[in-house]
Amino acid sequence: MPTTDHPTPSTVTVLGLGPMGRALAGAFLEAGASVTVWNRTPGRDAELLARGARGTATAAEAVSASDLTVVCVVDYDAADAVLRGEDVTAALKGRTVLNLTADTPARARDTGAWAAAHGIRYLDGAIMTPAPSIGTPDAVFLHSGPLDVYEEHRPVLAALGGTHTHLGEEIGRAAAHDLALLDVFWTAMAGYAHALAMARAEGVTARELAPFAAGIAAILPPLFEEFAGDVDAGTYSGAINPITSAAASMSHIVAASESHGIDATLMRTVEGQARRVIARGHGKDGFIRVTELLSSR
Amino acid sequence: MPTTDHPTPSTVTVLGLGPMGRALAGAFLEAGASVTVWNRTPGRDAELLARGARGTATAAEAVSASDLTVVCVVDYDAADAVLRGEDVTAALKGRTVLNLTADTPARARDTGAWAAAHGIRYLDGAIMTPAPSIGTPDAVFLHSGPLDVYEEHRPVLAALGGTHTHLGEEIGRAAAHDLALLDVFWTAMAGYAHALAMARAEGVTARELAPFAAGIAAILPPLFEEFAGDVDAGTYSGAINPITSAAASMSHIVAASESHGIDATLMRTVEGQARRVIARGHGKDGFIRVTELLSSR
Repeated sequence: MPTTDHPTPSTVTVLGLGPMGRALAGAFLEAGASVTVWNRTPGRDAELLARGARGTATAAEAVSASDLTVVCVVDYDAADAVLRGEDVTAALKGRTVLNLTADTPARARDTGAWAAAHGIRYLDGAIMTPAPSIGTPDAVFLHSGPLDVYEEHRPVLAALGGTHTHLGEEIGRAAAHDLALLDVFWTAMAGYAHALAMARAEGVTARELAPFAAGIAAILPPLFEEFAGDVDAGTYSGAINPITSAAASMSHIVAASESHGIDATLMRTVEGQARRVIARGHGKDGFIRVTELLSSR
Repeated sequence: MPTTDHPTPSTVTVLGLGPMGRALAGAFLEAGASVTVWNRTPGRDAELLARGARGTATAAEAVSASDLTVVCVVDYDAADAVLRGEDVTAALKGRTVLNLTADTPARARDTGAWAAAHGIRYLDGAIMTPAPSIGTPDAVFLHSGPLDVYEEHRPVLAALGGTHTHLGEEIGRAAAHDLALLDVFWTAMAGYAHALAMARAEGVTARELAPFAAGIAAILPPLFEEFAGDVDAGTYSGAINPITSAAASMSHIVAASESHGIDATLMRTVEGQARRVIARGHGKDGFIRVTELLSSR
């Protein structure tokens, strides 16, 4: 076991030993906690056992070993398959589950209701950074659920490093933030993939484009903050960059892409949203008015 | 006229006096250049004339006044309508045009060929930052065309501030970079608009989400650089984040979006791209392999 200056030895159980689950268990071990691990498919725990973790034959034994069970599996179907087994549910009564599995807010709420019905204390969380970040200052965790339960387990979660934010007691808030942020991330990445394909067709390599693309990405954070104010206030100033100008750029992108036989469905969709905002009489507003278009039923 | 320590008084003509054209002309004036301005629709030049610019009745007179004419109009249809007028084309012979109008690489090449056929020296450029940035260190200009012509006019362009990059002699390169970068920008912005709509439906305000969204955007620049290496090398490691995991996140986003009646066409398209990469046997690769999918005919 590694030496540690952790003030109070903690016990924690980790269910799910994919890359992220192993990173979580490893960070707890590194901090000197007593760690029990379990995975549906056996054989994933060898390195953790060598580092001092305890393995169990069943999930029920694993959750019985600790006051706090951290779950990180592929989705809520997988989480439910473990947690809602009769023995496991019974063993969890009076204990705390922190579910770091990614899924929809609706699934988080459903599991929250199941936990309440079985006397299980329940926190739902999301990990916004990849497995190698766990245990480092770069890790980002979002949490939702009862504040007193969160505060009680906050010290052991410190072993995971990074920043932890409690977003509120409504159990779906962590998943809602998670999905919205993944939405930003993957849509942006899809835009980059398309831009790289267009650039390649024009004889521009990815490495040539990358520094400029990084420069574009670097201007997004302050714009995101600025446009959030517009959206909450319902004001959508297009004084500097009206949506008509954005739509013109978009049509150039579609034309250039399709001239090379590169699918432009993504940008056609974005341009369509912009054109609908313009058609509704908001051509002098900024592009972020699309949020309003998408929100209206 | 403002005082100046500009070493050699320059002359420059600016065609097009929209917000960007006015910003360009204003920056030239500020640097002490002799500036001639013209706009198809009259009346846009009042403030510039008051600051010392010279106005002309015709575009041909305007381009005759300077060795360098900078064009910034809405698109190449508008640029052609001015430049390819018989008098203007004749007046431009032996002079230089820097076309900062945004359009496709194909249009830039077409105008380059027209210029060559008429003995006009031609540079094509793109402005990557909004009008208020012009004349400040924040402005970003991309240029393509003959290097000697670029170098000759580089001193007067310094008046526009910011950074100027010559991307190569192939005349379409500035437009190719411009469109690829706008592709990244507007796709990312569309992802943010959708994320804000989803967040709102979950009771999360834009201002609550914004700091986290800004944090996500801040991790994009190094990832863009890293993935560019993957794309140029044809290696697409998904060791940290395989595309199967990305596709699972995407399906959660689609489900959550549609459960609130929010159109998810954009993320459905992105997920479809990921699923096609997986179906081709590349599920262990990273998402950026989508570039390959889009590039293949």
